[in-house]
Amino acid sequence: MEIKENKENLKIILDDSSNLSVNQIRRLLNDMSSSEIAHALESSPPKQRSIIFSLLETEEEGDVLFELGEEIQQDLISNISNEELSEAVKELELDEIVDILQNLPEERMKTILSNMSKVDRQRIEMGLTFPENTAGGLLNTDVISVRPNNSIKEVLSYLRDQKELPESTDKIFVVNNDNNYLGELPISKIITTDPVMNVREIMETDIPAIDVNLEDKDVATIFERNNLISSAVIDHKGQLIGRITIDDVVDVIREDADQNLLGMAGVAEDTFAPPGRAAKSRVFWLAMNLVTAFIAASTINIFQDVIDKIVYLAVLMPIVASMGGVAATQTLTIVLRGLTLEQINTSNIKWLFKRELAVSIINGIVLSTLVAISTYLWFQDYTLAVLIASALVINLISSVIAGILVPLILRKLNQDPAIGGSVVVTTVTDVVGFFSFLGLATIYLI
Amino acid sequence: MEIKENKENLKIILDDSSNLSVNQIRRLLNDMSSSEIAHALESSPPKQRSIIFSLLETEEEGDVLFELGEEIQQDLISNISNEELSEAVKELELDEIVDILQNLPEERMKTILSNMSKVDRQRIEMGLTFPENTAGGLLNTDVISVRPNNSIKEVLSYLRDQKELPESTDKIFVVNNDNNYLGELPISKIITTDPVMNVREIMETDIPAIDVNLEDKDVATIFERNNLISSAVIDHKGQLIGRITIDDVVDVIREDADQNLLGMAGVAEDTFAPPGRAAKSRVFWLAMNLVTAFIAASTINIFQDVIDKIVYLAVLMPIVASMGGVAATQTLTIVLRGLTLEQINTSNIKWLFKRELAVSIINGIVLSTLVAISTYLWFQDYTLAVLIASALVINLISSVIAGILVPLILRKLNQDPAIGGSVVVTTVTDVVGFFSFLGLATIYLI
Repeated sequence: MEIKENKENLKIILDDSSNLSVNQIRRLLNDMSSSEIAHALESSPPKQRSIIFSLLETEEEGDVLFELGEEIQQDLISNISNEELSEAVKELELDEIVDILQNLPEERMKTILSNMSKVDRQRIEMGLTFPENTAGGLLNTDVISVRPNNSIKEVLSYLRDQKELPESTDKIFVVNNDNNYLGELPISKIITTDPVMNVREIMETDIPAIDVNLEDKDVATIFERNNLISSAVIDHKGQLIGRITIDDVVDVIREDADQNLLGMAGVAEDTFAPPGRAAKSRVFWLAMNLVTAFIAASTINIFQDVIDKIVYLAVLMPIVASMGGVAATQTLTIVLRGLTLEQINTSNIKWLFKRELAVSIINGIVLSTLVAISTYLWFQDYTLAVLIASALVINLISSVIAGILVPLILRKLNQDPAIGGSVVVTTVTDVVGFFSFLGLATIYLI
Repeated sequence: MEIKENKENLKIILDDSSNLSVNQIRRLLNDMSSSEIAHALESSPPKQRSIIFSLLETEEEGDVLFELGEEIQQDLISNISNEELSEAVKELELDEIVDILQNLPEERMKTILSNMSKVDRQRIEMGLTFPENTAGGLLNTDVISVRPNNSIKEVLSYLRDQKELPESTDKIFVVNNDNNYLGELPISKIITTDPVMNVREIMETDIPAIDVNLEDKDVATIFERNNLISSAVIDHKGQLIGRITIDDVVDVIREDADQNLLGMAGVAEDTFAPPGRAAKSRVFWLAMNLVTAFIAASTINIFQDVIDKIVYLAVLMPIVASMGGVAATQTLTIVLRGLTLEQINTSNIKWLFKRELAVSIINGIVLSTLVAISTYLWFQDYTLAVLIASALVINLISSVIAGILVPLILRKLNQDPAIGGSVVVTTVTDVVGFFSFLGLATIYLI
């Protein structure tokens, strides 16, 4: 089993106690593909990471650097010389070099570029002009294009002359004399078609080329909806400027998912980031939560008198707040998923809101019954039991409003609704939870 | 822009106020691909969903059903007759039919199978024997295989005879006379090689075939690491039984990401699930949280006396608990990501634990300073300020232990660590937060 073997390799390399010699590690690394090495680096604490990277051949370094997340990539690059970096990226594809260079300090990028041939430099400078999160950032220029009046026989002999086709070439592209994109020609069609046919007769035009400015997640959607392996990319004049392949699209999907997961908790760092950087990535939302926790505390502060008289209110009040927090996070998660998958729009948001209200009422009835029974059994106080149940229902309803409105408002403000949204919604449910419970207690218990 | 147009179509269909006639909706649906229609269905409340689905042609229904999430798929299927369902799935690929049939009630599945030809029935019954979350569940049998002693010329003419190659065919497979898998032959290599060569001379053997029992997320890893478009699947005897294509792997990646995101909040439902089902999917973790909230309340209950004497302890105690909860969720998220990406193992978990401890101490110093200053400014009580700062540091350290141990223990118990983990870790930080703050107050303030 290949995958098991690699897991073993990784464990051996990372395990201090295995006491490998440099040569033994080098041999293990030689058996691994560049993305497996990248995975090993991403699974390593910083010290081991530098050691492993330093043991790689220069040619391997480029491929590995490209596979790495941005943070680790830039860390490792900052430790190698300009000459080594120039050498490492030499054999990479355009989008890969651009991916690595675009995060470098200006000065350094210029030096690396000046080490390149003029043709390469111009191609890369073109690539660097596209924003990272657009189709342009995923673009490769290794396209094969033919003309509509070529015969399939000519195309076949042209392909044979290439000796080797670029990776993930499932189709070639058809352009006119001005390099305007006309359509595509799947390789499978080329080999199943009578060679006397013309490109024009069998080229496909139903799936349009991708605009270079399209956002990368929209590129992913197009690939998924149409089961694409590669697609042509055109500029605003309709000229073919490159292609995007499925492997880069899969990376986009993975990164998006990763950011969604981490963003909810207000974290943004690689798994084995050094402590200082990890602390920095998390302190913002912790500090925000400190502010909101003081807001919740101020709410309690209003009710010092009633707590002073009936101390077990302090015992029970976190229950109401905590239940609201969990319910709000549930609603928030559903809305975030709906927004990410572009399922939510103005026409169905009302239905969603009503549905969430219905859910909060159904679960409100179930949970407030449970909470009332438990409270009665604990404190033998009928009024208190009714009070906490009512406060819980109120807080579950507030959790719906917060869980839906907060992400929608963040999006309207052009903020990523996935980042730190849970800190904001739980503030609402804390405040409403404490206020409704202690407020009702003030009215009915004193 | 294709993607914009489809977003518009979707909005028009879903908008009540657009008052479309049945024929107008039908026309809009005709312009959409099956996965776009699936997306429209997933973005629709249940009532509109049934209407849209009822307007589809029977041939379209099968493709659309396959693209849908399991829940919606089974809902829609439960409303159509066995004849219609048999007709709808007729043209689908093996893995697609299996995907739809495997969730049907036993009786119904048998009826549908009995409507099929013997060959189809046997293929599908074979497919149904593989667990859904393995390579077998992603398998298609539309493989093209050749023998090692075939010449490339023979292969080319064989391919031409096929008229059309199966979707995502970037390679064909090489087997011996007993159908044992030997290697693969990329289409791009076939057309760039001298036709007099033999298959044996140019076939590739460096990437092994996938075992039919491999877990689907390991399949995804292999595809990603090797930038695969398709891969052979073999049984335990090494026989070629089918192939997996990248489009199905992308679905696996998407579904995993979706489950990770939703699982954290204890939610498992499609975005527009009806209220009853949504309530049911969420009530378990809400009820669990009720139990844990009562545990936290019992902790406070121990300290009734001290709260009775110093009421502002009740005001401040949620701050300590809440900060611990956010920090624990951050650690939990990093560990869950590391486990999902298989970056964490016995060799690096110790480093990760030490790093998290360091992070909690760094952020503990920053945040406890802030909390001490704020508390002093509010209550003018020096001891209280030191107390709450100390309790916060203790709770941040407990948050690391909970955030790392809870997912690891859940995994050891063969539970999905991503599901409801945050409810468990926040219980720990609530209890430790209340206990340390009120406990220290009992010692130093009375």
